[in-house]
Amino acid sequence: MALAAALFADLGAATRQGRGIVRDSYGDGEQAAHDLMRSAAAAMGLEISIDAIGNLTMTLPGSQRDAPGILIGSHLDSVPQGGNFDGAAGVVAGLSALSGLRRAGVVPRVDLKVMAIRGEESSWFDISYIGSGGAFGLLDPDCLAIARSDNGCSFESALLARGFDPGAIRERRRLLDPGRIRAYLELHIEQGPTLVEMGLPAAVVSAIRGCRRFRNARCFGQYGHSGTLSREHRRDAVAATVALLHHLESVWIQYEGRGADLVFTAGELSTDPALHAPSKVSGETRFVLDFRSASEATMRDIVAEAREAAVRIGDEYRVRFELGDTSDSPAAAMDPRLRAALMGVFDQPFEMASGAGHDAAVFAQVGIPSAMIFVRNDNGSHNAEESMDLEDLAVATRSLIRLLVDFPF
Amino acid sequence: MALAAALFADLGAATRQGRGIVRDSYGDGEQAAHDLMRSAAAAMGLEISIDAIGNLTMTLPGSQRDAPGILIGSHLDSVPQGGNFDGAAGVVAGLSALSGLRRAGVVPRVDLKVMAIRGEESSWFDISYIGSGGAFGLLDPDCLAIARSDNGCSFESALLARGFDPGAIRERRRLLDPGRIRAYLELHIEQGPTLVEMGLPAAVVSAIRGCRRFRNARCFGQYGHSGTLSREHRRDAVAATVALLHHLESVWIQYEGRGADLVFTAGELSTDPALHAPSKVSGETRFVLDFRSASEATMRDIVAEAREAAVRIGDEYRVRFELGDTSDSPAAAMDPRLRAALMGVFDQPFEMASGAGHDAAVFAQVGIPSAMIFVRNDNGSHNAEESMDLEDLAVATRSLIRLLVDFPF
Repeated sequence: MALAAALFADLGAATRQGRGIVRDSYGDGEQAAHDLMRSAAAAMGLEISIDAIGNLTMTLPGSQRDAPGILIGSHLDSVPQGGNFDGAAGVVAGLSALSGLRRAGVVPRVDLKVMAIRGEESSWFDISYIGSGGAFGLLDPDCLAIARSDNGCSFESALLARGFDPGAIRERRRLLDPGRIRAYLELHIEQGPTLVEMGLPAAVVSAIRGCRRFRNARCFGQYGHSGTLSREHRRDAVAATVALLHHLESVWIQYEGRGADLVFTAGELSTDPALHAPSKVSGETRFVLDFRSASEATMRDIVAEAREAAVRIGDEYRVRFELGDTSDSPAAAMDPRLRAALMGVFDQPFEMASGAGHDAAVFAQVGIPSAMIFVRNDNGSHNAEESMDLEDLAVATRSLIRLLVDFPF
Repeated sequence: MALAAALFADLGAATRQGRGIVRDSYGDGEQAAHDLMRSAAAAMGLEISIDAIGNLTMTLPGSQRDAPGILIGSHLDSVPQGGNFDGAAGVVAGLSALSGLRRAGVVPRVDLKVMAIRGEESSWFDISYIGSGGAFGLLDPDCLAIARSDNGCSFESALLARGFDPGAIRERRRLLDPGRIRAYLELHIEQGPTLVEMGLPAAVVSAIRGCRRFRNARCFGQYGHSGTLSREHRRDAVAATVALLHHLESVWIQYEGRGADLVFTAGELSTDPALHAPSKVSGETRFVLDFRSASEATMRDIVAEAREAAVRIGDEYRVRFELGDTSDSPAAAMDPRLRAALMGVFDQPFEMASGAGHDAAVFAQVGIPSAMIFVRNDNGSHNAEESMDLEDLAVATRSLIRLLVDFPF
């Protein structure tokens, strides 16, 4: 893993700011990472191409160049003050795999392409899957006006500043033909503690959880004097919200009990700082409900359950919930043949769902057989303390190489 | 009730700003109210005195001037954008009662005094019971430095600006001798909906609820990715806080079930706006717990219960609660002889506890037999929509007069 070690050292040196990594989507940080990968690929003799919105593809040609190729992809951007491995590990692993095959003198049957995808982290521009969605012409052209969260520059101006073409997004141009891609493979650090706790270096991903999110849920009650209002006279927004959230937690436990894949989070919750007071029954809360599951049916069920509970508990507490619409990202099943093949090449086969979203969900959505490998990572992701062992990456990369040389279709 | 109607009209004209009433403690609004009451008392021929911190006493002399007198008191200040009746109703009723007795040619046995008490609303200066506490030398001298919430002027400078003497508070001077007060009577609008719902014009107050408040309670968990952390790996501050608040509500319902007097409110609750996110398990909450009861024992029990539950639920959710200390105001029982005598002179006798604090709690605390009458009031208090019918005030005032002419001790 000399190549991987060198690439991570270069990435860290180029994009660390203080404790954490800053590879801003379409900014200097992401560009520095793209430049490093491109140089490494050129040194390996790979073919290089960059599409209209900046996705970088590095190709090891196969013997049948007309046949659809296999894409190994991941993103190179990071959240602000993120870690060195989220995203980059997949590109580095892809290059390592191609380098290994090349050194072994293997000429693949079909083109093997490593794709460094732009803008996967929505923390800079509040847009999901810029690079992969944009490559398939799936982005809403309105997203060009969205401002970058820290400096206010529009996505369009960010594209133009790098010499890319906003027209591709405005015209919903398809830069990648799904028919030309046999399969999409993505290696990513695990963003939770499962592999650390299980003592396993890597896992096969069974599915990518989708999300249903009530981003702007509110509860309207009535403010009143905390000392003088008896319970039956209250229209207490806090008490009602607490009852709703407590109920949803108990429903979650029921779902778990029957083996359904689900996580539920209320990560934001607040009374109104302008109107609340220690001696006042609260008349309003705002909160976020975030449901994720690998099963669309489970998300549909829990969202319906939340809506029903909001009405029932609203009546009980004499308040009114306005949950609003959900913002949705679909669950994506990974390809069963690829999953089975990966389980076959793992020394310690283990499958798990991905709680976070990944570009692989976009490839699966457009019908491309897709698969993911998780690599053990300590301390979670999206922080400076991400900690991946290069030995674990080597284990995962060997499995990826085994899959490529004995591809199931 | 011609006098009462005229006084409320004058009060409203002098102190209404926009929709609501503004009688700022020691400010122009409260002073205007004091000036109006003083003029009315002078026109009635009452003796007038003003103590070192601005409390105004208006006396109808009794035949035994050496005997301890009876004090009828209430405050004249209001919250910002409050109503015309909270506080003022008690002073107006006192003056109406004395006017009625005088017109009827009654010479009372002992001095009957109406006391317009300063600064009962802690919304201007965050000090409890300025006028009554200060009259008994009970205020902490440090309170002189406390800044007014809207303009930042210190309490000391507010006293000086009106020509009053901060030294009285600095030296904890006793301006009123409890031994010279036979009884304290206070009439106040009800600040809840009980009398409106029961169709009763007035009630006898059995006790004034005390308060135990956790003003700065916090829960510390750990931030994490909402999609990737399974339930057993979470240290979710919101989920734990919800569990604690839900538990305390169920405990409250149990207390109610066995007839204990208790109200419980969490009026402020918030995740950290700087760190929370829709896709993050929350690592911290801040909240307020407010317990009120007419029984000190009940408040002691529920506070102990809250502390135990915080430890147990903290362990269960792998978070740490820091409830901090409580700020306390004691419960005050009203005098049993006065309660019985008032019930005897009510046409529709009905007793209830006061959920809010009143100056009567201070008089009861220093050992003066104290009693309160509530008058029906719609729309709650501390808002521009307070709505008291003058007919109800007349009913209550008649009961007050009956008590005065047939005093039980």
